[in-house]
Amino acid sequence: MAKTLAVSPLAPAAFPQLPVIGGVEFAVAEAGVRYAGRTDVMLARLVPGSTVAGVFTRSATRSAPVLDCQDKLGGDQSPGAAIIVNSGNSNAFTGRNGVEATQAVTSAVADVLDLPDARVFSSSTGVIGEPLRHDRITAKLDELTASLSPDGIADAARAIMTTDTFPKGSAASVDLPGGRVQIAGIAKGSGMIAPDMATMLVYIFTDAQIGFDALQQMVSEISDATFNCITVDSDTSTSDTLLMAATGASGVQVEPGDDAFRAALHKVMLDLAHQVVRDGEGATKFVEINVTGAESDADARTHALAIANSPLVKTAIAGEDPNWGRIVMAIGKSGAAADRDLLTIRFGDVLVAENGWVSPDYREDQGAAIMKQSEISINVGLGLGQGAATVWTCDLTHGYISINADYRS
Amino acid sequence: MAKTLAVSPLAPAAFPQLPVIGGVEFAVAEAGVRYAGRTDVMLARLVPGSTVAGVFTRSATRSAPVLDCQDKLGGDQSPGAAIIVNSGNSNAFTGRNGVEATQAVTSAVADVLDLPDARVFSSSTGVIGEPLRHDRITAKLDELTASLSPDGIADAARAIMTTDTFPKGSAASVDLPGGRVQIAGIAKGSGMIAPDMATMLVYIFTDAQIGFDALQQMVSEISDATFNCITVDSDTSTSDTLLMAATGASGVQVEPGDDAFRAALHKVMLDLAHQVVRDGEGATKFVEINVTGAESDADARTHALAIANSPLVKTAIAGEDPNWGRIVMAIGKSGAAADRDLLTIRFGDVLVAENGWVSPDYREDQGAAIMKQSEISINVGLGLGQGAATVWTCDLTHGYISINADYRS
Repeated sequence: MAKTLAVSPLAPAAFPQLPVIGGVEFAVAEAGVRYAGRTDVMLARLVPGSTVAGVFTRSATRSAPVLDCQDKLGGDQSPGAAIIVNSGNSNAFTGRNGVEATQAVTSAVADVLDLPDARVFSSSTGVIGEPLRHDRITAKLDELTASLSPDGIADAARAIMTTDTFPKGSAASVDLPGGRVQIAGIAKGSGMIAPDMATMLVYIFTDAQIGFDALQQMVSEISDATFNCITVDSDTSTSDTLLMAATGASGVQVEPGDDAFRAALHKVMLDLAHQVVRDGEGATKFVEINVTGAESDADARTHALAIANSPLVKTAIAGEDPNWGRIVMAIGKSGAAADRDLLTIRFGDVLVAENGWVSPDYREDQGAAIMKQSEISINVGLGLGQGAATVWTCDLTHGYISINADYRS
Repeated sequence: MAKTLAVSPLAPAAFPQLPVIGGVEFAVAEAGVRYAGRTDVMLARLVPGSTVAGVFTRSATRSAPVLDCQDKLGGDQSPGAAIIVNSGNSNAFTGRNGVEATQAVTSAVADVLDLPDARVFSSSTGVIGEPLRHDRITAKLDELTASLSPDGIADAARAIMTTDTFPKGSAASVDLPGGRVQIAGIAKGSGMIAPDMATMLVYIFTDAQIGFDALQQMVSEISDATFNCITVDSDTSTSDTLLMAATGASGVQVEPGDDAFRAALHKVMLDLAHQVVRDGEGATKFVEINVTGAESDADARTHALAIANSPLVKTAIAGEDPNWGRIVMAIGKSGAAADRDLLTIRFGDVLVAENGWVSPDYREDQGAAIMKQSEISINVGLGLGQGAATVWTCDLTHGYISINADYRS
């Protein structure tokens, strides 16, 4: 049973007003997969012609639903599609039983919605290694189908939560030559994987009309700059899944490479990614790390992730300690190119270190003032080239230890 | 000022009785580099003909004393040598000033002991980025020289401590065809780098006679299987240093590839490495991770370190939670080859998971009983090949957060 956790201090003030996306309907149910007294299954039905693209965990031990989704991407979109998600059990590392459970759920959804199996995508999130009670999900399919509604997306955002302390949603609209299109997305994740619990799941819907190849490419590219640039604890879920569906209900065509649509989708995905970090387990600080002047973008990302994942950097931030020595350490260990004596380090706008040493103008109280804020930027210049990267993370606190050490047994 | 921390629950019962190593003398002093009321400088003098080998941090931002030691390895050994170490200040990321401070200290030692500068090795450990008050060290050199003594190694082990909660020493003797030789070593480190504080420093002495090339090769190879197989928090010091000196005072020659000497040295280095893990900040569990059946030894090590460094695995161990799902997760994310359905996972001797799922005979109370022990082994079989690796780590507790977040500012 998931403990009720206090809402993250970094949570947005409220769940946003999400627009209705033509061509999608949602329903939720209390199936009792693991939790009692809350919704734990969500169903989304997509009209015929909807394209579905996806991005998934790269884990070598990924779950049966993830493998099933990957198999199904790019299939015939004429009959429509559905997405079924449960929380409470991840159906990961469940052997042959896991494959059977995924088949049982997706086939039953296909039957009740009159779709081919190949157009039913599923996700599961929750405890690893326990058999998924798929009968509890299929028992609710008639109820779910009967209650499908175009404005159920906020309820869907709640049904997929596990250790999340707030539901996550984001939306954008774009005026294209053919008319206005809408994008709305929901996500769950406390920024980590886990057993008892977590995993990141993201579902994004648009009424724009986009071919599969163009949608898949756009989603893959933007994921690299958003969801693949956040880290809470460096651990990778066996179940991470992002699915994006374009229903075409607006009748407005998006061409591959349309900049306005891409920018709007980027905004939605970045907002959802940031919300996942803001719900990082035990998080009290939202941290942006910018690395510039690296030999390559890949090197910049390696340095940025080394800083973001360093337990010593993360605990210093938790302690509001402007401990720039730990930034130097993280850069040194990352494995990417760096020259100690060319480094510059800024907390916010405050120049802390340069020329291989603390800046002569820096005063510790300046750094300490930055560290007291709830949103912090750490800016590193390497002085070697043009490579740049930005990643987002949170601090490492007693709350993280409490959630993950004091939890299960 | 370093806080006084409670002695680690994983500490050995007592500091071992270390033998006198012919050809080495030690002295310690209270120089007040940063700490008051305790020794913080140690000096070791080595007789003419002593070989000195070393292994150092691979950090790209390594400290001035590390770079200086690396330059000096392999020089003419006829005049003898010295090692000078201070705690309280790491002289790391101190720019040009850091180079000057290292020169000032090593030159002064060279003068007082009548050695060439090139035979004086130095280390500094403590806060990063603050100027080293080298005058406080050099002011103590006459006192240090006057008190050099063959049996001062235990005092030396104490003088180099920073956040360590106990001094670390280990010894072995070897009977070779030419006679008996002794090995004695000391180390400091709480398994992490840091600012306010830590770093791993190791000094090993033997009265055997060994050429530089043979000694360097042996030390490098054994380090790879000992000090490079421990991790506390995945962070790498800018100052890690291991120096080994062979005085030849026993008159007993060790040939390159001598198995008995190598085995004895391996035992001393492994013991010291384990003591560093046992003093890991906040540690309550000593954990051995064995990975077998990997495609290569390198893959096995990648998996083992992914498990050892995973915050979710480490917090599960802290919580005495037999959470094997997190082991699966760590293997999945490591990037090395793995097949979910061929994995076996054992806690101690208890088979937990096999064939891509929990073992049918496994009961959670068996795993829970293992997790209550203070020494835990996690044994993973990949079923792919012959690659194997062992690493050692500790758990991640509230104590770690307290030491590193609640500390400096």
